[in-house]
Amino acid sequence: MTTVLVTGFDPFGGESVNPAYEAVKLLPDEIAGARIVKMEIPTVFTRSAEVVEEAITREHPDIVISVGQAGGRSALTIEKVAINLAEARIPDNDGEQPLDAPLREDGDTAYFATVPVKAMVENVRSHGLPAFVSYTAGTFVCNSVMYNVLYLLDRKFPGVRGGFIHVPYASEQVVGKPNGTPFMPLPDMAKALEYAIEAAVNGTESVSGSAMGSLH
Amino acid sequence: MTTVLVTGFDPFGGESVNPAYEAVKLLPDEIAGARIVKMEIPTVFTRSAEVVEEAITREHPDIVISVGQAGGRSALTIEKVAINLAEARIPDNDGEQPLDAPLREDGDTAYFATVPVKAMVENVRSHGLPAFVSYTAGTFVCNSVMYNVLYLLDRKFPGVRGGFIHVPYASEQVVGKPNGTPFMPLPDMAKALEYAIEAAVNGTESVSGSAMGSLH
Amino acid sequence: MTTVLVTGFDPFGGESVNPAYEAVKLLPDEIAGARIVKMEIPTVFTRSAEVVEEAITREHPDIVISVGQAGGRSALTIEKVAINLAEARIPDNDGEQPLDAPLREDGDTAYFATVPVKAMVENVRSHGLPAFVSYTAGTFVCNSVMYNVLYLLDRKFPGVRGGFIHVPYASEQVVGKPNGTPFMPLPDMAKALEYAIEAAVNGTESVSGSAMGSLH
Amino acid sequence: MTTVLVTGFDPFGGESVNPAYEAVKLLPDEIAGARIVKMEIPTVFTRSAEVVEEAITREHPDIVISVGQAGGRSALTIEKVAINLAEARIPDNDGEQPLDAPLREDGDTAYFATVPVKAMVENVRSHGLPAFVSYTAGTFVCNSVMYNVLYLLDRKFPGVRGGFIHVPYASEQVVGKPNGTPFMPLPDMAKALEYAIEAAVNGTESVSGSAMGSLH
Repeated sequence: MTTVLVTGFDPFGGESVNPAYEAVKLLPDEIAGARIVKMEIPTVFTRSAEVVEEAITREHPDIVISVGQAGGRSALTIEKVAINLAEARIPDNDGEQPLDAPLREDGDTAYFATVPVKAMVENVRSHGLPAFVSYTAGTFVCNSVMYNVLYLLDRKFPGVRGGFIHVPYASEQVVGKPNGTPFMPLPDMAKALEYAIEAAVNGTESVSGSAMGSLH
Repeated sequence: MTTVLVTGFDPFGGESVNPAYEAVKLLPDEIAGARIVKMEIPTVFTRSAEVVEEAITREHPDIVISVGQAGGRSALTIEKVAINLAEARIPDNDGEQPLDAPLREDGDTAYFATVPVKAMVENVRSHGLPAFVSYTAGTFVCNSVMYNVLYLLDRKFPGVRGGFIHVPYASEQVVGKPNGTPFMPLPDMAKALEYAIEAAVNGTESVSGSAMGSLH
Repeated sequence: MTTVLVTGFDPFGGESVNPAYEAVKLLPDEIAGARIVKMEIPTVFTRSAEVVEEAITREHPDIVISVGQAGGRSALTIEKVAINLAEARIPDNDGEQPLDAPLREDGDTAYFATVPVKAMVENVRSHGLPAFVSYTAGTFVCNSVMYNVLYLLDRKFPGVRGGFIHVPYASEQVVGKPNGTPFMPLPDMAKALEYAIEAAVNGTESVSGSAMGSLH
Repeated sequence: MTTVLVTGFDPFGGESVNPAYEAVKLLPDEIAGARIVKMEIPTVFTRSAEVVEEAITREHPDIVISVGQAGGRSALTIEKVAINLAEARIPDNDGEQPLDAPLREDGDTAYFATVPVKAMVENVRSHGLPAFVSYTAGTFVCNSVMYNVLYLLDRKFPGVRGGFIHVPYASEQVVGKPNGTPFMPLPDMAKALEYAIEAAVNGTESVSGSAMGSLH
């Protein structure tokens, strides 16, 4: 049976909940015949990589998908690439604030996601929810976990595929924010995540001519 | 028993459905003890006012609330004011395209909503959904219906209160639109409309010090 | 000789300069053959109206145009309408913070600008700078000055025309603001204001079929 | 004497000018004591790399900086990383439209800019113009040129540093675009480019604690 490890970050920056993990918790225990293992991970550069590595060793997943929040984005975004860089505007939950630092001294400059990002986007859209491929996961803990997972899979867990999904703000989070701030209700986030994971389990990348890239 | 007439526009601009009326259809038949009368109206400058006037005569509502779509807005927006101006960038569903024209030769320059807009916003927010007061309903058929209703209530139906609510794009509508386009799933739109209408039925305007105005 | 009184607000909210008046100061002393009288006015609900009224009495202008800043807008916006409402999110420079209050007990609900807003927009655009008609001047001191000027012109100074122009942030102001915040360098603001004023002096409204209204 | 090769793209997508090269043309012939060599390059995946390689061979630059346009961005953005991916939503000027294709079969997944991107941003800002580090140059010809230049410098021209700068729309380009579209006048673009190049010539990366990274 295929196993998918899905991680979500714990609350951060003074918030009492993190919608990324709240949405993960709403996922069914089985998607497209695959077992879904849900795990909350700390919003910390160093420890987040450690706990994911332990979980990979313990759960033997075929796919690892991490979920984080990108407040201000309007839709689910499936990340294409993680870069070997930590540049933190604020400290993480352990007080770490790396600046212009590599995540792994011996790592590649970047790793591409090994899940089929375009097929994941297309499957979310085909169910009436907006999604896009993103070409930057930022330089904070989200990019860090994505990078570390892809680095570890490349070196220690051959054949296991990895990816990262960013979710927008949840409804409750934008009530006090400026007019114009996009959001996505938690149940819709969870459905969109489910469709993305379904395509990852099915595994075939899209060869669509409707490229999802940028124009510059 | 209090009666609320709630109107929503028919499909427009080549679309097969209009989320404004789709959300109205999802409203319960009773809100805060008031009877809810739902009506689809044409996206047409002249006829929309006529059919609403007929419905007011027929249904004897205590409150008239029209609902339209403002694609690109991120949240429910409760309109504060309608202006005596029609300026249409494209023709309406009857082919009318007025430019720089008054809606009523003998009307006031503007009418303020007579529903409690700030209390409506606060009630939506208190249920975890984003809402804002808006100070422009545009210059197309949405402003036109709001203006005509308030004009008619002022002249012919004293004591009846009126207002207008704009909803964002629905999920399905933004799937093909540019990244960054905000949306709100239909069920959440309907819940937000319900909370706004609940506050309108209760009738007391908020005197909150947390003003919802702009800064310029 | 035609005289145009052009006002700009003084610094506000802890800033040391206000780009609105800085741009006004850069205007030539004559535009389209008209004398330009520049005046700094306080960002205060009550006093701003008083000093403008004194200046109108003193200078006998044919046109009064006030200029304010709408941070977050991307282009010059020529305001079409001012409403009889004060709703202040923060106190003005005198500590006044009116909420849901009329500006003039005996005033109309709204006044339309009596300068040719569409022609002003078109003249700015024809010189390669972006401009739009706006249908809300907000609910703070900008709307207040525009409303008070149009109220006074209507009652006490027949034949004098009035309007309001919003400018974006200046370059220097966005250096510390979030990525994505639009701006306009001061010299370009001043040029755009000059073209707008030129069209106001010429006085003929555009009857263009390319309406500048909204779509909802 | 230090030499800086600065490239800008030719017109693309039916436009008669490309502001990227227009801004490059406005640069002085010497910046911080370095000779500036300006070159227009084709908006074509394959040929753009070839002509830049020829120019590097011919001009022996110490620094290569390419400039492209990212319509919709609000400020100068200095790119940190280029990725080994071509994903074109529309054909380039030679009709090439690669999808999900590597730019170089034997290239790294990504290359980091070897110019001091944070110092470049800080120098632009210190002159009152907005700038940001960007972590995605997209997947079209901009990213392609940046990637190819960094690949070539790494393999064939050791010690030569490379980077890429995105500029917003110019004023004239946004006149017909939707309200809200940010822009930067050409002379301001050219000044911002000059300050960025000045910091690249000086060569020391900033170690500022005011990180410019993202928060997710």
